[in-house]
Amino acid sequence: MLKLLQSLLLIFLTSIVFQANAASEEKPFAEQKVVLQISDADPGKQTLVLNVANNLIKAYGPDMVDVEIVAFGPGLRLLFDDNGNKGRISGLTDNGVRFAACGNTLKNVSKQLGRTPALNSHSTQVPAGVVRIVELVNQGYILVKP
Amino acid sequence: MLKLLQSLLLIFLTSIVFQANAASEEKPFAEQKVVLQISDADPGKQTLVLNVANNLIKAYGPDMVDVEIVAFGPGLRLLFDDNGNKGRISGLTDNGVRFAACGNTLKNVSKQLGRTPALNSHSTQVPAGVVRIVELVNQGYILVKP
Amino acid sequence: MLKLLQSLLLIFLTSIVFQANAASEEKPFAEQKVVLQISDADPGKQTLVLNVANNLIKAYGPDMVDVEIVAFGPGLRLLFDDNGNKGRISGLTDNGVRFAACGNTLKNVSKQLGRTPALNSHSTQVPAGVVRIVELVNQGYILVKP
Repeated sequence: MLKLLQSLLLIFLTSIVFQANAASEEKPFAEQKVVLQISDADPGKQTLVLNVANNLIKAYGPDMVDVEIVAFGPGLRLLFDDNGNKGRISGLTDNGVRFAACGNTLKNVSKQLGRTPALNSHSTQVPAGVVRIVELVNQGYILVKP
Repeated sequence: MLKLLQSLLLIFLTSIVFQANAASEEKPFAEQKVVLQISDADPGKQTLVLNVANNLIKAYGPDMVDVEIVAFGPGLRLLFDDNGNKGRISGLTDNGVRFAACGNTLKNVSKQLGRTPALNSHSTQVPAGVVRIVELVNQGYILVKP
Repeated sequence: MLKLLQSLLLIFLTSIVFQANAASEEKPFAEQKVVLQISDADPGKQTLVLNVANNLIKAYGPDMVDVEIVAFGPGLRLLFDDNGNKGRISGLTDNGVRFAACGNTLKNVSKQLGRTPALNSHSTQVPAGVVRIVELVNQGYILVKP
């Protein structure tokens, strides 16, 4: 009986540790984690990825879903400071959505333009968009590309 | 010894319940589950997603693969009742492929058109396409966007 | 106590077998496995998928990441022998990146063209691109479509 209790205690403690690890610091109660990818040039995709983030927040509630949008390639334009979706990005940030900008793409774009475009202040630069995506999937995020 | 047997019985019962949950009711013998996403405006993508569904059915056999196609954003057009792929959708339905239509997109489109477009009778409306995708991935489906 | 030891040994051996299975033969030390999908017609996507493969190699090092690019649908063009990215494909192959060409797509294209286009000698033909993707995801690869 003692051993059974020990086993149950071990399972219980393991599950606590696991959940603490799985939950992001920003959203400790998030039961679902989703990484949204934008890498298309089509501006319609910018609207779509923001709609999808919004639908996730509506469906789960802002505290119950952890959403990060990773932009790379031609999709990085979403996170340029002069992008027309600035207001929506700010609104989603208020609901805890995070935005990651690919540093490799920024370097390439800067070379082509001869200057480094300013990024949205709500975005965080990461070394490589795809590596960030791989990291998040390894942490249990589901990857969706709208 | 009795305790060991009890533990094994518990593990055994748990695994049965889990498998029953994991398998869809429609395809109890499916060894592979795939959710295909269509969210592009390009009509070529409609052909492609149907081709991919067909290739899965051909490769695994209709009883061994469980395929659901989730349409949202501009991709919802595939499931409009007047879409030219109606015959192919009907054929795939005969092989057990399911079609889910995003309710959020339908609401947006209806506002823009001033009327609600009729959906293919083989499709099922879901509240949000992305939430359906997340649900299916949580159930062990592999997400592919052709 | 003996039984506990037996159980632990079994778990240990199972985990060794699992890890041996999971590692690909080509890259026995790869800690990360990624399958990149190309199925778009847009030539910009050909550049992007090769950039992404390159970024993965740069970030993890060629021996530590296992990358396979699967081309199907209009994306198969990347692997046509006369594609302009031949030099880059060759360079990535030197770093262990593999290229899989969808046999179903090749059949369809051959019918339309009245001839079978030659494929890049660095690519391997697979019966169906989507089935190859499903196989790789089942082996622990993360699927990213740039």
